[in-house]
Amino acid sequence: MSDLRSKFLEVYSVLKSELLNDPAFEFTDVSRQWVERMLDYNVLGGKLNRGLSVIDSLKLLKDGRELTDDEIFHASALGWCIEWLQAYFLVLDDIMDSSHTRRGQPCWFRLPKIGMIAVNDGILLRNHIPRVLKKHFRGKPYYVDLLDLFNERHGQLIDLITTHEGEKDLSKYSLALHRRIVQYKTAYYSFYLPVACALLMAGEDLESHVDVKNILIEMGTYFQVQDDYLDCFGDPEVIGKFGTDIQDFKCSWLVVKALELSNEEQKKLLHENYGKDDQTCIEKVKELYKVLDIQGVFLEYESSSYQKLTKSIESHSSKAVQAVLKSFLAKIYKRQK
Amino acid sequence: MSDLRSKFLEVYSVLKSELLNDPAFEFTDVSRQWVERMLDYNVLGGKLNRGLSVIDSLKLLKDGRELTDDEIFHASALGWCIEWLQAYFLVLDDIMDSSHTRRGQPCWFRLPKIGMIAVNDGILLRNHIPRVLKKHFRGKPYYVDLLDLFNERHGQLIDLITTHEGEKDLSKYSLALHRRIVQYKTAYYSFYLPVACALLMAGEDLESHVDVKNILIEMGTYFQVQDDYLDCFGDPEVIGKFGTDIQDFKCSWLVVKALELSNEEQKKLLHENYGKDDQTCIEKVKELYKVLDIQGVFLEYESSSYQKLTKSIESHSSKAVQAVLKSFLAKIYKRQK
Repeated sequence: MSDLRSKFLEVYSVLKSELLNDPAFEFTDVSRQWVERMLDYNVLGGKLNRGLSVIDSLKLLKDGRELTDDEIFHASALGWCIEWLQAYFLVLDDIMDSSHTRRGQPCWFRLPKIGMIAVNDGILLRNHIPRVLKKHFRGKPYYVDLLDLFNERHGQLIDLITTHEGEKDLSKYSLALHRRIVQYKTAYYSFYLPVACALLMAGEDLESHVDVKNILIEMGTYFQVQDDYLDCFGDPEVIGKFGTDIQDFKCSWLVVKALELSNEEQKKLLHENYGKDDQTCIEKVKELYKVLDIQGVFLEYESSSYQKLTKSIESHSSKAVQAVLKSFLAKIYKRQK
Repeated sequence: MSDLRSKFLEVYSVLKSELLNDPAFEFTDVSRQWVERMLDYNVLGGKLNRGLSVIDSLKLLKDGRELTDDEIFHASALGWCIEWLQAYFLVLDDIMDSSHTRRGQPCWFRLPKIGMIAVNDGILLRNHIPRVLKKHFRGKPYYVDLLDLFNERHGQLIDLITTHEGEKDLSKYSLALHRRIVQYKTAYYSFYLPVACALLMAGEDLESHVDVKNILIEMGTYFQVQDDYLDCFGDPEVIGKFGTDIQDFKCSWLVVKALELSNEEQKKLLHENYGKDDQTCIEKVKELYKVLDIQGVFLEYESSSYQKLTKSIESHSSKAVQAVLKSFLAKIYKRQK
């Protein structure tokens, strides 16, 4: 695996230098250094799970046989397209939310001398994807499907995030909204996209795998609910940060559930204290979570959705595809970080 | 033509409602209204020449025969993709340059309650393009070429604009830089893209029309030089605005030429006065332009590049393509606005 990881990182260097040395840019040395720094800062900041899982998935789809160097290279290239896509998305998302930190470091646009140039950088990140696809996949039978795959959803990815309705209004938060946000922000590109890429490389067509898509979207939703849970109840030592969803007025699964279970008086308490960056308010919200036993509700949800997922996975016709889905599920079930 | 324009605008309504009613968005009524306002504000603000010229060009490539309604619809759809692309580009460009007005109205992000949500809006504009292409061109033999065409360059379109070198430094301005900026900001998508779309619809492949591309890039450069000229020497009554390139420190063809022709002392004057929003400084720059007879230099440039362009157009093998190129040239030669 660590060997795979190093191979994966080698491909990053290849794709990066293809970008930095693309004659079309006529970069000056200064701007080339800038772009390199920007890429490393924003693309390498994460755990790279999405990207790596393209390779893992392809291997499983090939019934576990060793992949050729060519297969590893192409799977890695697609993995990096997904990481690139996420970096683009996070850079712009942070600007729109005027966030301060990301992955334990300052948001890119917060760095000195950057500011709104970050918009340009974010777009450069995204624009590199079709170039990678064209350079390395133009000849493949699944080239058009790849273009559609990467075009389509990261369309809807960002489109939906901003509701344009500005003011904080807790009554807008519901399981339905949470589900929508999760599907576009996490489930689709962290769970479906890697598998879809692997399926295309394995010669499958995506139309006939709608069930796989639904399962992965479900899994992504489960993953995000865990994320919301850990933000409040996880061990900061383990997850490496202190959660801020409550003061940030996030549409978290916890607050949505709490609203669902609250009586009028408790609802009032939430409306008055949720989204305020004030320790007393935060404590009141956490206290209510205890009263409503949100932790118990979560553990309930966790086991039931685990069972549901296992059931639909085992009902899938292809053992290889089952293996892919199970490996995803195994990675996240009962995770503490 | 006005009939054509109205048909063109009908297609806008079709594409707009396809976006507004795309179930993938699950728009609320509020956000649907917002998006509609955003589209009309940013996409309809311009002269629509780029979009319309796809239809004109296709007609000429079909040896002037009347186009079928289907041809008009598809040519219009591609025309709107170009207008959409430009709108996306302008919305984000205005944020990065923190501009104030665009096309005689406030920049989108300057409007109340918008601000950085405009980043999202700009991206929504761009993300609509692959959807239009997929919905209306997925079956066409030239679908992949269209995807590549729209992917490729509006990549490099924005990538190059911000040099990341912040501070005002006149010594960076040169004909080479001017040329580069023009090619990516104007020439490619205002001149080449419409013709490339028409060529694909007419069943041509773009690889065999590199000469057409070069001619159109030249024409676009000529067009931008005119723009720079009119910004300073045009009649505000006619062009509908007062030029601000001098105080805005724009890399204008005029200042680049002036730098080229200046002696040390005149260079010093430019460095001291260019890019300052101060009437005296602006006058000093304009005075120097007179002394150096930049107007004469421009008229010189205009006629010589006109001759060059005509020559290369007439040396083209296909009469139909010649007609397309000539119609573009005729529209811009010696224009006063």
